[in-house]
Amino acid sequence: MSIKLDRFLKTFESVNEIGYASDGGVTRLAFSDEDMFARESLKTLCEKKDYQVLEDGAGNIFITKKGKIGKEEILMGSHIDTVPSGGKYDGVLGVVAGIEVLDIISEKNMSHQEDITVVIFAGEESSRFNLATVGSKLATKAITPAKLKKYTDQNGVTLYEALEDRGYDVKDIEASYRRLKKAKAFFELHIEQGPVLERTKNNIGIVEAIAAPTRIKIEIIGEDAHSGGTPMKMRKDALVAAAEIIVEVEKIGIWESKFKTVTTVGKCDVMPNAMNVVPGKVEMYIDIRGIDEESIERTEMLIINNIKGICRTRKIKSNVIILSREKPVKIDKELIYNIKTNCESLGLKYKIMPSGAGHDAMNVAKIGKAALIFIPCDKGLSHNKKEKVKVEDLKNGIEVLYESVVSLMK
Amino acid sequence: MSIKLDRFLKTFESVNEIGYASDGGVTRLAFSDEDMFARESLKTLCEKKDYQVLEDGAGNIFITKKGKIGKEEILMGSHIDTVPSGGKYDGVLGVVAGIEVLDIISEKNMSHQEDITVVIFAGEESSRFNLATVGSKLATKAITPAKLKKYTDQNGVTLYEALEDRGYDVKDIEASYRRLKKAKAFFELHIEQGPVLERTKNNIGIVEAIAAPTRIKIEIIGEDAHSGGTPMKMRKDALVAAAEIIVEVEKIGIWESKFKTVTTVGKCDVMPNAMNVVPGKVEMYIDIRGIDEESIERTEMLIINNIKGICRTRKIKSNVIILSREKPVKIDKELIYNIKTNCESLGLKYKIMPSGAGHDAMNVAKIGKAALIFIPCDKGLSHNKKEKVKVEDLKNGIEVLYESVVSLMK
Repeated sequence: MSIKLDRFLKTFESVNEIGYASDGGVTRLAFSDEDMFARESLKTLCEKKDYQVLEDGAGNIFITKKGKIGKEEILMGSHIDTVPSGGKYDGVLGVVAGIEVLDIISEKNMSHQEDITVVIFAGEESSRFNLATVGSKLATKAITPAKLKKYTDQNGVTLYEALEDRGYDVKDIEASYRRLKKAKAFFELHIEQGPVLERTKNNIGIVEAIAAPTRIKIEIIGEDAHSGGTPMKMRKDALVAAAEIIVEVEKIGIWESKFKTVTTVGKCDVMPNAMNVVPGKVEMYIDIRGIDEESIERTEMLIINNIKGICRTRKIKSNVIILSREKPVKIDKELIYNIKTNCESLGLKYKIMPSGAGHDAMNVAKIGKAALIFIPCDKGLSHNKKEKVKVEDLKNGIEVLYESVVSLMK
Repeated sequence: MSIKLDRFLKTFESVNEIGYASDGGVTRLAFSDEDMFARESLKTLCEKKDYQVLEDGAGNIFITKKGKIGKEEILMGSHIDTVPSGGKYDGVLGVVAGIEVLDIISEKNMSHQEDITVVIFAGEESSRFNLATVGSKLATKAITPAKLKKYTDQNGVTLYEALEDRGYDVKDIEASYRRLKKAKAFFELHIEQGPVLERTKNNIGIVEAIAAPTRIKIEIIGEDAHSGGTPMKMRKDALVAAAEIIVEVEKIGIWESKFKTVTTVGKCDVMPNAMNVVPGKVEMYIDIRGIDEESIERTEMLIINNIKGICRTRKIKSNVIILSREKPVKIDKELIYNIKTNCESLGLKYKIMPSGAGHDAMNVAKIGKAALIFIPCDKGLSHNKKEKVKVEDLKNGIEVLYESVVSLMK
């Protein structure tokens, strides 16, 4: 193994200098000046390394070490845009690790027939436009360019305009689509953004499926009343009804845990939210994620039945609005086997696991062959300036990525 | 009986024209221009009726029909300031009904030794300065003038300054204190602001005690985590812990209902409150009200024990902060008997009941003899432009007030 960690870290830090704040947070919102500057600096770096650099109409950057024949292609990558005041590793890891893999292969003068490519997918984070994985969605035709006009940032700039302003022709994605569709593999190395690997003391997570969320908005409509003047039995307290629902949502999540489904009430707004008023209304949002479709459907049904039952008993109205209902994406079994074998030969402890969060690999997996490799991050913290990864885990991740690519090379 | 409802309504509407918005809400915040204008117009009206009008250093207005001897005094009254976009009846009822009682006694040329007085207490609503019943607190020495410097409105004006700006000398309350302390009675007629009388089909509520709130702030500190990436059993979900507590708080309130104690979680703030984040922190406020001290103490203890137990089981931290712990105020038994007898002779159905909300009568009752009489209001709605009272109930209230005063007259 010939990872040059200094080389990796130099590139890694050069990206993270852009948008870095003194408090440790990094801010490179999708298509912002910081994001564009970071992209340009990586393009320049890779051109200097004599890799071919191409950009498509969605802003996705393809950095290629050409193969002898070049009819086939092995891809790696992730994204370099961030949430506001995000961490250094989310996304950047997968891109810079990919460049390190290209560098090792170059340095070793290894022969390969396939083109080997690092993709920097554009606009992965949803922070600016409320749409995640924009670049990989466009390139895989999961979304049409016309739809981009529906998403705006807080200044009213549409995603369509943002791309046009940066000089992109969003219709120019045919070549990317074909590349991703016929690729031998796309490997995305990413931090776990959860606590599982750290707590189970595993070095590597091999994702078996990517959970897509079902999101439900619940309105619970009781009656405002004076907290002093209204006897307990004359109340229609929307918050107590909401509380019973929250407790049930957790119970159902725990029952369905064996199918790797999780349930969360993350957002809950109480109205009027005053100390001396029995709450008349609560709005809350339920997030269901899983990789087993039957379990996801059962979870949704159980939750809705519970809401109805609790509100019926309390004579309180409820509105249940399904905001989104996406399907989990299964990861190619051969790629999983490939990564697993590489972990074993490297002596690394691995865990086959779901990904609760969405990633660019999810879009690629829908039209072609994509895999997602996790390394542990400190306490599972991400989207946060406290994001931290041990050097040992960085090395392990890059090694597994390298071996996975090499094992597919002809 | 000689109530002139037209006369009552004319005065009532003349007050409510001031600060009235086209949507039906009335806004006369304490010591605002609208409040001052309404006060002046009532003072002018009562001077024209040849009643003596005096104002103390707290802005409390005393409108007196002098008695033959005048050594003793019977008082009635309430307040005319409102919450933002409040209703027409809250407070104004008790003041204008008192003036109607004076008018009936005058018109009938009834002889009485005592002075009969209507008090308009200043600044009853807490909306502007976060301090309720300011005028009656000052006049009964429940608060010192110096303390007024601690309370500010949203423009940074202290309550002390607001009173000074309106030309009041807040130290000038000795005469009011003596009057309230030695009065034969102070009767406050008020809308119930709760649903009990309407639902139990009673005409009159005779308050036996005024519940003072115990208020508790709870901070529940778990751990933020990604809703997709964090298995159910690895979470420290502050919202589920809060939900269990909310359910228990209601249960305890229902158990203690037989002692007329009520419990409410009215305010609950979730952090970071995002759909895809397991909530790391919840702040909530619990309001306990009762008239039985043992029950109030037991309720507080049970709630705190439950919080500790739930958080211990979930390995979540909690901070319990007691914000206030006031004592219930008992109403004079003779006055209750007096009102009860009058209801019976008028053929009105009455209910002896607690007042969950605080009122000026509460402060007067601490130093002297005060009673609180309720009439039903539509659905118990108050502090709301939808506040509504049936004409029949208005009449009943004024009659009971009149009879209660007359039965004490010598």
